[in-house]
Amino acid sequence: MTTKELKGQVIAVLANDREDTLETLPTDRLILTLEGITTDRHRGQTMRANSRQPFYERGTTILNTRQVSLVSMEELGFIQKALGIDYLVAGWLGANISVVNIPHFSLLPIGARLFFSSGTVLLNMGYNPPCTGPGEIIQRYFPDVPANRFPKVAHLKRGIVAMVERAGEIARGDTVRVLLPTQPPYPPEG
Amino acid sequence: MTTKELKGQVIAVLANDREDTLETLPTDRLILTLEGITTDRHRGQTMRANSRQPFYERGTTILNTRQVSLVSMEELGFIQKALGIDYLVAGWLGANISVVNIPHFSLLPIGARLFFSSGTVLLNMGYNPPCTGPGEIIQRYFPDVPANRFPKVAHLKRGIVAMVERAGEIARGDTVRVLLPTQPPYPPEG
Repeated sequence: MTTKELKGQVIAVLANDREDTLETLPTDRLILTLEGITTDRHRGQTMRANSRQPFYERGTTILNTRQVSLVSMEELGFIQKALGIDYLVAGWLGANISVVNIPHFSLLPIGARLFFSSGTVLLNMGYNPPCTGPGEIIQRYFPDVPANRFPKVAHLKRGIVAMVERAGEIARGDTVRVLLPTQPPYPPEG
Repeated sequence: MTTKELKGQVIAVLANDREDTLETLPTDRLILTLEGITTDRHRGQTMRANSRQPFYERGTTILNTRQVSLVSMEELGFIQKALGIDYLVAGWLGANISVVNIPHFSLLPIGARLFFSSGTVLLNMGYNPPCTGPGEIIQRYFPDVPANRFPKVAHLKRGIVAMVERAGEIARGDTVRVLLPTQPPYPPEG
């Protein structure tokens, strides 16, 4: 019920405008409209449903609630350790923004708002269910790690997806403040 | 953590395209695009922040997360009783859709999906904080009930606001199935 504040910092911003890979590459700043990141292939008011939305027929046009992908460095560290690899790059997960200092980042409630110091505001649409795509990229660097291990160890550690609530820019080094929603639990307690 | 299903029914659909009142009027069916109800003044990709979004400067252009207003007949009955009035009309609250049989409707978690039998899908964006507007309409019919009593008794009983995730129609008599999100609690338990 309480409105709790959390503060973190942006370590990197990344984007990818190519259709043939999910890998994002670091850049200086992102420009965000209400449809997403101008230089990223996930921009758009709509998207096509896929295996992440099993309640829709594949290919159905639906609202794009996966405009921006965010990860936390602490959770990437956890995944790296669990995979037993020497390093892990946010871009291999297709992340657009990596942050530090927000505990249990992937568990932030749906509806949490992320206020960036540049003025942009993102609305958390929930944890990002991991698929094998990042595992395939990881395997290119660490051939001993099967691609299907990533979804197993990254569950609830693979960050969140967000919509843009207020347009603007986001840059490396920005601070980010998280405002939790006041929605009570369902069903109500007691 | 579990994905629980709930089923209800649409009692009425309502809309209002006038700027000078919040009152909605019953109609046969609503047509919904990804920007909201075509015949309702709350349609649009964007809205201006007001007192409901105290974390934005008033007038800031933000994503319209309040496209559709839904209420439950059971909660309207609670409000009616609490106000001590003989009847209460969903349109006085500016509701677009009234439903039955979904317990604790206003507490449905943000991110819950409402699947209507016509194919339209709405995404719950949270409970609707009550203001005095409906209280003023109620007072026209029941002069003894001060307008400011409505926000007091209607807190967490005034329904939810939603975005359109899948476009389509919604009609009187449709069934509605609610799918709760799988997002775990934050912070994690234990």
